[in-house]
Amino acid sequence: MTMLKNPSVKYRPFGQIDLPNRQWPGRLIDQAPRWLSTDLRDGNQSIIDPMDGVKKARFFDLLVEIGVKEIEIGFPSAGATEFTFIKHLVESGTIPDDVIVQVLTQSREDLIRTSFESLEGAHSAIVHLYNAVSPAWRDIVFRMSKDEVREIAVAGAKVMRDEAAKRPDTDWHFQYSPETFSTAELDFSISVCEAVMEVLAPTPEQPIILNLPATVEAATPNIYADQIEYFCRNLPNRNSAVISLHTHNDRGTGVAAAELGLMAGADRVEGCLFGNGERTGNCCLVTMALNLYTQGVDPGLDFSDIDRVIETVEYCNDLPVHQRHPYGGELVYTAFSGSHQDAIKKGFEANDAQNDEYWRVPYLPIDPADLGRDYEAVIRVNSQSGKGGFAWVLQQKQGLKLPKAMQRDFSKHVQRLADQTSRELNSDDIWDAFRAAYHVQTPDKHFQLVDYNETRASDGTRIFSGTIAVQGQEQSVSGRGNGLISSVMATLREVFDVELEVVDYSQQSLGAGTDANAATYLECVTPNGKTIWGCGIDEDVATASVRAVISAANSAIAPSVAE
Amino acid sequence: MTMLKNPSVKYRPFGQIDLPNRQWPGRLIDQAPRWLSTDLRDGNQSIIDPMDGVKKARFFDLLVEIGVKEIEIGFPSAGATEFTFIKHLVESGTIPDDVIVQVLTQSREDLIRTSFESLEGAHSAIVHLYNAVSPAWRDIVFRMSKDEVREIAVAGAKVMRDEAAKRPDTDWHFQYSPETFSTAELDFSISVCEAVMEVLAPTPEQPIILNLPATVEAATPNIYADQIEYFCRNLPNRNSAVISLHTHNDRGTGVAAAELGLMAGADRVEGCLFGNGERTGNCCLVTMALNLYTQGVDPGLDFSDIDRVIETVEYCNDLPVHQRHPYGGELVYTAFSGSHQDAIKKGFEANDAQNDEYWRVPYLPIDPADLGRDYEAVIRVNSQSGKGGFAWVLQQKQGLKLPKAMQRDFSKHVQRLADQTSRELNSDDIWDAFRAAYHVQTPDKHFQLVDYNETRASDGTRIFSGTIAVQGQEQSVSGRGNGLISSVMATLREVFDVELEVVDYSQQSLGAGTDANAATYLECVTPNGKTIWGCGIDEDVATASVRAVISAANSAIAPSVAE
Repeated sequence: MTMLKNPSVKYRPFGQIDLPNRQWPGRLIDQAPRWLSTDLRDGNQSIIDPMDGVKKARFFDLLVEIGVKEIEIGFPSAGATEFTFIKHLVESGTIPDDVIVQVLTQSREDLIRTSFESLEGAHSAIVHLYNAVSPAWRDIVFRMSKDEVREIAVAGAKVMRDEAAKRPDTDWHFQYSPETFSTAELDFSISVCEAVMEVLAPTPEQPIILNLPATVEAATPNIYADQIEYFCRNLPNRNSAVISLHTHNDRGTGVAAAELGLMAGADRVEGCLFGNGERTGNCCLVTMALNLYTQGVDPGLDFSDIDRVIETVEYCNDLPVHQRHPYGGELVYTAFSGSHQDAIKKGFEANDAQNDEYWRVPYLPIDPADLGRDYEAVIRVNSQSGKGGFAWVLQQKQGLKLPKAMQRDFSKHVQRLADQTSRELNSDDIWDAFRAAYHVQTPDKHFQLVDYNETRASDGTRIFSGTIAVQGQEQSVSGRGNGLISSVMATLREVFDVELEVVDYSQQSLGAGTDANAATYLECVTPNGKTIWGCGIDEDVATASVRAVISAANSAIAPSVAE
Repeated sequence: MTMLKNPSVKYRPFGQIDLPNRQWPGRLIDQAPRWLSTDLRDGNQSIIDPMDGVKKARFFDLLVEIGVKEIEIGFPSAGATEFTFIKHLVESGTIPDDVIVQVLTQSREDLIRTSFESLEGAHSAIVHLYNAVSPAWRDIVFRMSKDEVREIAVAGAKVMRDEAAKRPDTDWHFQYSPETFSTAELDFSISVCEAVMEVLAPTPEQPIILNLPATVEAATPNIYADQIEYFCRNLPNRNSAVISLHTHNDRGTGVAAAELGLMAGADRVEGCLFGNGERTGNCCLVTMALNLYTQGVDPGLDFSDIDRVIETVEYCNDLPVHQRHPYGGELVYTAFSGSHQDAIKKGFEANDAQNDEYWRVPYLPIDPADLGRDYEAVIRVNSQSGKGGFAWVLQQKQGLKLPKAMQRDFSKHVQRLADQTSRELNSDDIWDAFRAAYHVQTPDKHFQLVDYNETRASDGTRIFSGTIAVQGQEQSVSGRGNGLISSVMATLREVFDVELEVVDYSQQSLGAGTDANAATYLECVTPNGKTIWGCGIDEDVATASVRAVISAANSAIAPSVAE
């Protein structure tokens, strides 16, 4: 790549909005907006293979289940597929009473008529009229003056008014979008909206929806907020209008623009699940809603089974939800880094111990369980992980709670494996590595416990007598000590010349109930001061301890792999 | 899904920053920040399979080619893979003189030492020290007081200072991150940074880099900007520090936070290409840079071959760039919707005709060509497309510029095909549909021109005499008219009883040069007023016209498919 004359000279800075004493930067979002999903319209018109009727119906049902109450279901005049789906949905009687459907139409008499026809029989509906108002569209696309462009909107509004009047059995609502609002002159947009309002005569009880699209995102998100605040301040009869936001994500700040737009005075947000929509997509309703969630604000939408939502959205759109998509991506609750894993582990422990219900786990802005996600997926292990990660995985998968010092010992094995394989280690890899490191449930180890009996001698000492296979050859052996472990230790010392001293011992149950296994961890030292770890797992607590000693003995005579 | 008790009660609102008279909402970004890529560190530590040395080297080379001058190359104390790569890169001599590498270290003496060792022999380097400072980390992870946490930073800074002093041949720079800055008390973060500055004694000529992470994004992006402005205003010796931003994208507003943070006074941005990084990722450097680009600001980074950048990033991270990722996604310059396609087409035409160089094509915030992308990919056709789309595709692929009225005619064929197939139509589909609709270059049509001669009669009229196959049976035919077309028309009328009248006629060359084909478009009416279109393509302009008449004749006798 050679550095060309930089093409930035082809582009004009967007500039400032003249908004003295702007208020929005000092506000918070403390209640949910009205949500409109345009998945079936803006979303559907921008995917490679538009949805057929089956997919549209499935998506509609999903939106209803999530709790979306305003749903744009299509563009009736765009073609037979669209019209038929809309008409069928309306006539099917499956639209719940508290859900209102919306259709989009350009401002042409025949198209508006077709749109009303498609909704014939609906209990209520929003007809959404739009025309573009910005200079680029006026000059390049329409070759029209401002007055002519305003007149398009007014003419359309009159047709809407008249078509609605012909069908008094439906509760009609009107929405008008000055398309390309964010790149238009604010005062002109206001004057067009005002003219439309004059025709439709909204009231505070029967307000018009004025939807203000960032059709193409063209500036930093604060500029959009300035535009919304300016619009809200200067629109006559503001209280007869619901101000709606419709952002796109061309500059990667579509969600931010909608959030700042709400702070600037808007009431409603249009968007798509997981940010589908033209080009870079619309504002992502999942992200917007769950952002409210983590601020203690109830969004009124239910994402408690987010994986089901993802499944349907991916199926209908035939586009993936990215691994890093906020809240939904496969990797967004995952930590590979050791220090992150360690902090998360401590956070979960602290969360269990705390007195209030507030969530505060480091690196996890939201409790994955609130979205139906597992804690198990949180920590994943690769060469970047250090010791926190595998310990968590062993605990989650096998129930093993390794002592701290043993974690350090085992971490060397894991780190080496991760460096060697240069890939993510899954829970099987880690369990295999653990079994190999401590000779647990492996067939080919040097010493293998076959069977044993423990008896109490008359002097109170204990006698271990058992069968141990040494490289496959079974031997009957015995030894005596003050307790079970020391009797096995004595046997190993006397019969096999393996000298170990116990430094620390712990035992835990794996799971609950009478058939739960037990795990014994044994920290030993050799005569020359080397630390050796043993682990034994068995359904019998005593046998688990015997196995732990044998495990340590195997490590003591095996060439060390952990240095 | 049933609506559970809403878990939003588990989360606390973030609240406001007390920042009277905030300045940033009135500012614009009018120059590029310093860029640091942390693809090889934050990016690498968060992917499923961390990069091996080969991938790291390839990514490093890419960053250098793009023009990134500060590159965080790893975490030397994290493991053998990291240390070895860093040491090897430094010793290889391949780091350009104007590129400075950076490594991250926790604040522990042995780890800082290891970090300096990994950089031994570098001409210049940034050592990046961090420790987390927020209450959640102090309480849950470290169980330390504020003073103890500050002391961790100070102790680390002293080791940095001393290790650097031992190696005077390297031009050392220091970076300190109060990790979890965005969820910490601002005055405490400032006091920690101040204490670190006291140890490292930066000057305006040798400034320290203070990097202020939104380790987890926890609030709307304006809050982060408030925090940055507060920090910049209240830091003693502000002019001895480079303020650096490091945002994450947990709330989908990581780019926005970095942009507003720049407006709030920061000098430098850390991030990853296409927003890789922990969980939801870091700020996307591609988006940030190209956002500047479209504001007329030279970002100092070269994305003129963005597909090559994507290819390398996807290969190294083993994660896809999403289809809707700003600037880079497969679908971000694509329009399926008819009205969008129409506007884009007009925009391109206007762009060709205008007197200045400024870019203003509707729905395309950036010229795809500036990123090495094709115009061809811009317009794609499915059932949502209407007439603008296929016309563009025919023009781009076949060179055909259909007259407006013929576009309307053909659009019915395309719409039906799109409705029937319910999938995207590719350029072959459209070309096949065109050939079928107008009997162009199809073998099985009713009338097929085999050969012809055109002679001038003594009275000035023209005589067409040729061979036409009718359902495969060749016939010698002739007719007379005032010109070529009318002589063919006369033949059709007299021999085959096909009555047509020409309404409009146009011809264009397809491509340039002597072997360019010509296309003739013919609008005709039948005696009962039906409009019939014909099209002929041939290397000879006269033959193209003859073919156009035959084409119209085939349509006239064929059962109409276009109603």
